[in-house]
Amino acid sequence: MRVGERSYRSIQVGPDGRSVEIVDQTCLPAEFVLTRLGTLDDVVRAIRTMQVRGAPLIGVAAAYGVALALQQDPSDAALEAACWALLASRPTAVNIRTALDRMRAALREIPLGERAEAAYRVAGKLAEEDVAINERIGLHGERILRGLAASKPEPLQVLTHCNAGWLATVDWGTALAPVYRAHEAGLPVHVWVSETRPRNQGYLTAWELTQQGVPHTVIVDSAAGLLLTRGQVDVVLVGADRVTRRGDVANKIGTYLKALAAREAGVPFYVAVPSPTIDWSLEDGARIPIEERAAAEVIEAEGMPVHNPGFDITPGRLVTGLITERGLATPDGLRALFPENESSVHFLIF
Amino acid sequence: MRVGERSYRSIQVGPDGRSVEIVDQTCLPAEFVLTRLGTLDDVVRAIRTMQVRGAPLIGVAAAYGVALALQQDPSDAALEAACWALLASRPTAVNIRTALDRMRAALREIPLGERAEAAYRVAGKLAEEDVAINERIGLHGERILRGLAASKPEPLQVLTHCNAGWLATVDWGTALAPVYRAHEAGLPVHVWVSETRPRNQGYLTAWELTQQGVPHTVIVDSAAGLLLTRGQVDVVLVGADRVTRRGDVANKIGTYLKALAAREAGVPFYVAVPSPTIDWSLEDGARIPIEERAAAEVIEAEGMPVHNPGFDITPGRLVTGLITERGLATPDGLRALFPENESSVHFLIF
Repeated sequence: MRVGERSYRSIQVGPDGRSVEIVDQTCLPAEFVLTRLGTLDDVVRAIRTMQVRGAPLIGVAAAYGVALALQQDPSDAALEAACWALLASRPTAVNIRTALDRMRAALREIPLGERAEAAYRVAGKLAEEDVAINERIGLHGERILRGLAASKPEPLQVLTHCNAGWLATVDWGTALAPVYRAHEAGLPVHVWVSETRPRNQGYLTAWELTQQGVPHTVIVDSAAGLLLTRGQVDVVLVGADRVTRRGDVANKIGTYLKALAAREAGVPFYVAVPSPTIDWSLEDGARIPIEERAAAEVIEAEGMPVHNPGFDITPGRLVTGLITERGLATPDGLRALFPENESSVHFLIF
Repeated sequence: MRVGERSYRSIQVGPDGRSVEIVDQTCLPAEFVLTRLGTLDDVVRAIRTMQVRGAPLIGVAAAYGVALALQQDPSDAALEAACWALLASRPTAVNIRTALDRMRAALREIPLGERAEAAYRVAGKLAEEDVAINERIGLHGERILRGLAASKPEPLQVLTHCNAGWLATVDWGTALAPVYRAHEAGLPVHVWVSETRPRNQGYLTAWELTQQGVPHTVIVDSAAGLLLTRGQVDVVLVGADRVTRRGDVANKIGTYLKALAAREAGVPFYVAVPSPTIDWSLEDGARIPIEERAAAEVIEAEGMPVHNPGFDITPGRLVTGLITERGLATPDGLRALFPENESSVHFLIF
């Protein structure tokens, strides 16, 4: 997407054909900094510290982490060790597991001498797939936004949470892809951006929207309820870190409260879900592991007792629709849209 | 209440018998600072900048503001001007109006030469009434907490929002009064403290609870939903800035989302309401004016579009009970508990 006069992706192989270049998201929105990751450890640290973040992006970053590891040591043991290190980096988003399943399946049978090269190829393929998936989500989501906008002359009011924009993916974004498409096509749209404590990813969203010229307003997370009761929101549109096969949604902490308030206000609540974010092995969202993050993210003061869960679960019954690359599904209809996954096998258990 | 080895009130007449001494809440939790207010303008500024905050406390502060003004000029015109300046300082909490109604009713007929002295007397009476009211709320609320704790061996888990402790009142607090009483009586209780963006009044609550030795844990505002769905909260207990006669509750932004999540989880949602916080002239909470505060409270960055409403409305249907100084009322039963207010007249219209 556009940053100033140029177009960027959030992750790509560097000019040396080996290292991985990322937009360092801990520097945004203050500074736009590209950082080079040269080793598996660099990638694990970048995921942990959220230099790269967003479920789709950390999936792709993990794939490149495997490629970097195999360049040093292409053995089966190194492949396994890399996968486990990456899997342990962040527990809630399933995309790391999805990506590593793909990497292992593709690389296991490849002779050691060709593995590293193959790993870059597969990681690159996952990155391209992410872009294509998000373009499709943008297309399907734009149709939904147009439908909602048809009945009102004023700009369509979209409420989002956290950052599900291009920074959270390789390009386009998930929840923001429909917004970008609609805006580019001339549909008047305004986005309410929830600041998303404690890490304030809302400011990444505000920064993205500023770069693309989309009108927006920042609110504190707590203000979503008032806006919804006052009729100031036409649609809630968020991303996801893991969706179960019955459509329960793990997403950034605070998503669930917005879903409750949307239902109460009769406002549709949509979740943009690329298929690598779906965990076909789980039915009940309550079984998704919720990451506990450092107290220091909430407050610097030492000794203050803090509980800092990073995600919450929105049950499928609160979800109007899941916008996937294959189109819109109700939570109940997700399986029918991806019939091939009914029998999907996971090589790693997490 | 206790701060270290000493007991304090959040507001009192200074040793000169004229100035008003407050705990400067903009310095907490970092520093405990007593500040002296010498003029009406000082009081208006202290209310606006939230050196004093909390609906009951700003009511009492406003009363002392009138006393300071009348010391300079005891005329009817000065009395009127003081009331209007104070009324305009913050719009949502009704307590300023309640206190000024009381002041005007008491002072109008007093000869000019005795007015200032009488004003201090009435303001002092309002302060003492606040303390007595909160003690009663503590008593009634403690009974509710005991009832909820009876069925569980582990500590009772209370979730609160913002600061409705002694800092928000003259002493004791509203929502925290029952917690303090229960804790002192040996009932095991743990408080989840919602940080309360953008002003972080949750840290005032954490500071108060630390001083009184009550176990507590800070969470971001968005985490309340997850805790409630996981059964980690037994009761939600908050204060109020204005309650209508049918029991709709204006309180710090984010209260409504907690009420929705409590109902969804089947957890009782109580509001501690001193009667000066009840606006008998209003039926519908949607008619309560919601203060819009400065964008800089949310983010320092200039030019960032920000919407910063300070309060939201929780409709009575989401409220399990209102804990008043006369005991517990359902939203529907509030009028019956205060029958004398059916015909109450307000001298000021706001």
